[in-house]
Amino acid sequence: MKATINITLKSGVLDPQGKAIENALGQLNFSGVNSVRQGKLIEIDLSETDAAKAEASLTAMCEQLLANTVIENYDIQLDKSE
Amino acid sequence: MKATINITLKSGVLDPQGKAIENALGQLNFSGVNSVRQGKLIEIDLSETDAAKAEASLTAMCEQLLANTVIENYDIQLDKSE
Repeated sequence: MKATINITLKSGVLDPQGKAIENALGQLNFSGVNSVRQGKLIEIDLSETDAAKAEASLTAMCEQLLANTVIENYDIQLDKSE
Repeated sequence: MKATINITLKSGVLDPQGKAIENALGQLNFSGVNSVRQGKLIEIDLSETDAAKAEASLTAMCEQLLANTVIENYDIQLDKSE
């Protein structure tokens, strides 16, 4: 079963990478950009076929390794089509 | 209008960051992980309200700055709810 995990900075946490992209877009003459936030996208392919077990396992992975839950939120999307 | 851009490595391109996560998950005793790929997630808030114009602008941003189209794919998702 494949899953996609979106990890984003919590609102209020400074995002220098996003600011850098915002400035670079300004220098390339893209106007009307109000804000840019950069996060991480992790695609995991699990051999687990049960959706509930896969989700529990992915949540544990996020809590223990993938996300810094002090400053980041995570969102798990399971691809149930397979 | 808000948009989310997912930037992922093309298949076949080596992903050392993904491999590192895969190994770290193994060391934390998570079994059944077949593969991990890491990509980028960029959230942009544009003042443009027309979806077609916003998408054209975002495509140009991806081509010129956000994605390295030699090794990366990008996927633009517009949040049309606003």
